Amino acid sequence: MSQILAEPIARLIEEFGKLPGVGPKTAQRLTFYLLRRPAEEAHALAQAIVDVKEQIIFCHVCFNLSATDPCQFCADTNRDHTRICVVEEPLDILALDRTGSYKGVYHVLHGSFSPMEGVLEDDLKIRELAERVGQGGVQEVILATNATVEGEATANLVKMRLQDSGVHVTRLAQGLPIGSDLEYADDYTLSRALEGRRDY
Amino acid sequence: MSQILAEPIARLIEEFGKLPGVGPKTAQRLTFYLLRRPAEEAHALAQAIVDVKEQIIFCHVCFNLSATDPCQFCADTNRDHTRICVVEEPLDILALDRTGSYKGVYHVLHGSFSPMEGVLEDDLKIRELAERVGQGGVQEVILATNATVEGEATANLVKMRLQDSGVHVTRLAQGLPIGSDLEYADDYTLSRALEGRRDY
Repeated sequence: MSQILAEPIARLIEEFGKLPGVGPKTAQRLTFYLLRRPAEEAHALAQAIVDVKEQIIFCHVCFNLSATDPCQFCADTNRDHTRICVVEEPLDILALDRTGSYKGVYHVLHGSFSPMEGVLEDDLKIRELAERVGQGGVQEVILATNATVEGEATANLVKMRLQDSGVHVTRLAQGLPIGSDLEYADDYTLSRALEGRRDY
Repeated sequence: MSQILAEPIARLIEEFGKLPGVGPKTAQRLTFYLLRRPAEEAHALAQAIVDVKEQIIFCHVCFNLSATDPCQFCADTNRDHTRICVVEEPLDILALDRTGSYKGVYHVLHGSFSPMEGVLEDDLKIRELAERVGQGGVQEVILATNATVEGEATANLVKMRLQDSGVHVTRLAQGLPIGSDLEYADDYTLSRALEGRRDY
């Protein structure tokens, strides 16, 4: 391919191809798209990539990705700092906060416990969470890891590590998603929905 | 979203979202992927974007995108310069040359005739092709525009503009793709395959 294509073109196709979910065809399409666009547009993308790596840091309190330390959530005195919602990834904060139903603070584990994929306990920010809780003032830790095998294992692990702290540990409800048909629900979801049934 | 996300993150999501086929969710995924990767990897992508815009130019002969002018095809004396294959986009050259079945040179129109979408004859490199053919030495012009309505219209237009030059104009064969089932072929393809049938 590099013989047919000019080196800078082949290189950009290769770089785009390293992104997740971007195959060779998509990488080609993106490259030739940028070649057709004004230089300013391509430079804006390049600059945004450089900026995000140079300006974004970890919040030392909750390990969210942020341009400031502490991050906007940890620095916000209007939020409820007695409640910590534990998530796997920074993107999960986006999803939770968009609901407007949660006004506490967060803690990002940066992954889920998955020995099969080489992610062990020390790779996650669990010890940091235990230390944070240990400093006192926290009433509830909400485990908002994914409803997957790894997410469940992670929730279990975090719960175990917080056992001695005496903090109240809760887990997001599992059951039928809103708008879904019972007929099409999978067995696991239906079992969880039954187990978790509430007075009505 | 910009209130929940740090500005550099929100900006990169926005920039990625401008790329074709990249929706808000994909743009988020790409952004957080780069945030997790080493800085060198992100910078390599940013640099490749800058380089492609700064180093890639049009070949003044065939209007292919290239790091050199004339491009490698036009500069290659081993290729057959009496045959010009006319394509819509530079990517089409990649597809054709990969076959190894063509050893002539190319001409990139940079689009297809589509008045509905505002692409008129003057937006395409048709006049430049006529001038190139007019300089003599060309025996065959192969129309390799897409087998779509626009590609067909473009092929017709180019043929008309080359009529006075006396050059031999051909069009890529249309018919059943190799490995396809007759049963699943659409009516248009089947009609073309019948019209274009050959002695066997």
